[in-house]
Amino acid sequence: MTQTKGRASLAYQNPPRIIGEASIVGSKEGEGPLGALFDRVEADPKFGKDTWEEAESELQLQTARKAMEKTGMSEEQIRYLFAGDLLAQGIATSYGIMELQIPLFGLYGACSTCGESLSLASMAVNAGYADCAMALTSSHFASAEKEFRFPLEYAGQRPLSTTWTVTGAGAFVLSAAETSAAEGASVCVAGITTGKVVDYGVKDSMHMGAAMAPAAADTIYQHLADYGRTPEDYDRIITGDLGSIGQKILKDLMLEKGVDLKDIHDDCGILIFDADTQDTHAGGSGCGCAAATLAAYILPKLKTGEWKRVLLVPTGALLSKVSFNEGQSIPGIAHGVVLEHC
Amino acid sequence: MTQTKGRASLAYQNPPRIIGEASIVGSKEGEGPLGALFDRVEADPKFGKDTWEEAESELQLQTARKAMEKTGMSEEQIRYLFAGDLLAQGIATSYGIMELQIPLFGLYGACSTCGESLSLASMAVNAGYADCAMALTSSHFASAEKEFRFPLEYAGQRPLSTTWTVTGAGAFVLSAAETSAAEGASVCVAGITTGKVVDYGVKDSMHMGAAMAPAAADTIYQHLADYGRTPEDYDRIITGDLGSIGQKILKDLMLEKGVDLKDIHDDCGILIFDADTQDTHAGGSGCGCAAATLAAYILPKLKTGEWKRVLLVPTGALLSKVSFNEGQSIPGIAHGVVLEHC
Repeated sequence: MTQTKGRASLAYQNPPRIIGEASIVGSKEGEGPLGALFDRVEADPKFGKDTWEEAESELQLQTARKAMEKTGMSEEQIRYLFAGDLLAQGIATSYGIMELQIPLFGLYGACSTCGESLSLASMAVNAGYADCAMALTSSHFASAEKEFRFPLEYAGQRPLSTTWTVTGAGAFVLSAAETSAAEGASVCVAGITTGKVVDYGVKDSMHMGAAMAPAAADTIYQHLADYGRTPEDYDRIITGDLGSIGQKILKDLMLEKGVDLKDIHDDCGILIFDADTQDTHAGGSGCGCAAATLAAYILPKLKTGEWKRVLLVPTGALLSKVSFNEGQSIPGIAHGVVLEHC
Repeated sequence: MTQTKGRASLAYQNPPRIIGEASIVGSKEGEGPLGALFDRVEADPKFGKDTWEEAESELQLQTARKAMEKTGMSEEQIRYLFAGDLLAQGIATSYGIMELQIPLFGLYGACSTCGESLSLASMAVNAGYADCAMALTSSHFASAEKEFRFPLEYAGQRPLSTTWTVTGAGAFVLSAAETSAAEGASVCVAGITTGKVVDYGVKDSMHMGAAMAPAAADTIYQHLADYGRTPEDYDRIITGDLGSIGQKILKDLMLEKGVDLKDIHDDCGILIFDADTQDTHAGGSGCGCAAATLAAYILPKLKTGEWKRVLLVPTGALLSKVSFNEGQSIPGIAHGVVLEHC
């Protein structure tokens, strides 16, 4: 049923369908270029809770519920949940989805988790392990700043190379092609390319685009090699949150490998904010950046057939406050997901 | 090829084999009842590195290499790595396995990660996504104390309900039954039961057995229901790190559900230390506890056929320092893995 391709890729013969998706974001994201496309823009950054962490848990839960509502699925019909976030020990997920009582695979791939969750959910559905599975990821600006840098109350200065963690979550319901739930669904996960940890020695946690670009280049290059394709085989190759500086580095690295991305490359971090007017510097970032942009902006274009094939490459920076304070570099990882109109 | 069973279980028709395993532990574990069974006991708690986190990374890398050495596998032959640890943002894994350059799925399930990694690795191999995959998990006493409680230098007092985080790692190489690599392998992953997040409201991070026992009970009960089995169908049902108090709670909870575990239950946390002489109080804990005990003690008994069938249920406490300090309860999760002599 499945074809392994090259070192790190799979191509599904009868690809799982994305039968529904949902995105919920904060007010800053709602004021951005994609503002009108999200399912909901929440004005209260605490989502009615007392702490930033509880806020992110609530955001994740509400997004999961919204995806179930849109697909008419109950908790019992979703066999597995593949979910993660950026916080230490994945607490936004653990506390957020508890009341759903769906068997959970907890994931950590930093901001690449959206790609990791879609990969594993599509693998499970394609193998017949589940008629239906959900991929779910979130991030929150305030909980992420506190987790990786300083609490907002410190009012730390942000250099121009920084990205702004998106307050947002995306949920995706995948279903096997032959199920009744998949009838009429017009987007599939056609294949995946799984990333390796890549470290170019960047140590500046205010310059994540530079830390992650080598991993994105590695995964995109591996993907094209495994599939025997060129960038022209895609309507878009879209990374998760490299931002404007990371985009430039990615294009340079790809050129060094002999691949010209030309105008085919986009980045969710560039798409989600207007850097000129929103003071977000290099762009958006966070697990929720790729997830919300995928749900609100990318999937609709694939549904209508405006785009036939997209390579989505969520990118993650694998640092913690501890590793940063101990002077370690910031390795990256990126997971590729082939999305097709079908 | 695969049979889904009940709400949360899979039973593989031609189960993936465990073709090799390795365990490396620290000196305290080496002095325990299983000391002679580990592949290596390392006397230097820093594993030749400068920090506890780097030490755990090195431990994880060395254990992965040992498993490859024992199976004669190279990095190129292992298609996927499913790995995790307890540290914030999984840094023991990210930094540890970087140089292996194997496509990575980063996982977080607290101390249940050994079960989660074996589950996902067996799912991938069984589906034909990989001839060969590795499941890898680690924990380190000093990095875990610093991560969840206080640095060791604070010399915090440990109440009798605490468990002692195992310094250890376990690596498992899984291969599809029909591959030449699997010839002669006599242990298989026959199936899995995936856990949900379960929260009974325990808030004491020095009493993890109580926090995790409800999740263990939930998964074991679900497993028996999904498979239509009773505890007597197993030679042993072995939890990850409930310790002596958690074991009692588990047995009580199971009795309330009408299931008597009698003498069939064991716990890696009880097996790995001699609580009377080693000052470990309720027992061992950590990702490495279940992983090292599985590699050193459980698999050999399955290989010889002394045990025919074991349900391994690594148990995880889903807390972070942040959630603890914010007064949150400690939810648990447990993932069941059916191991059989074949």
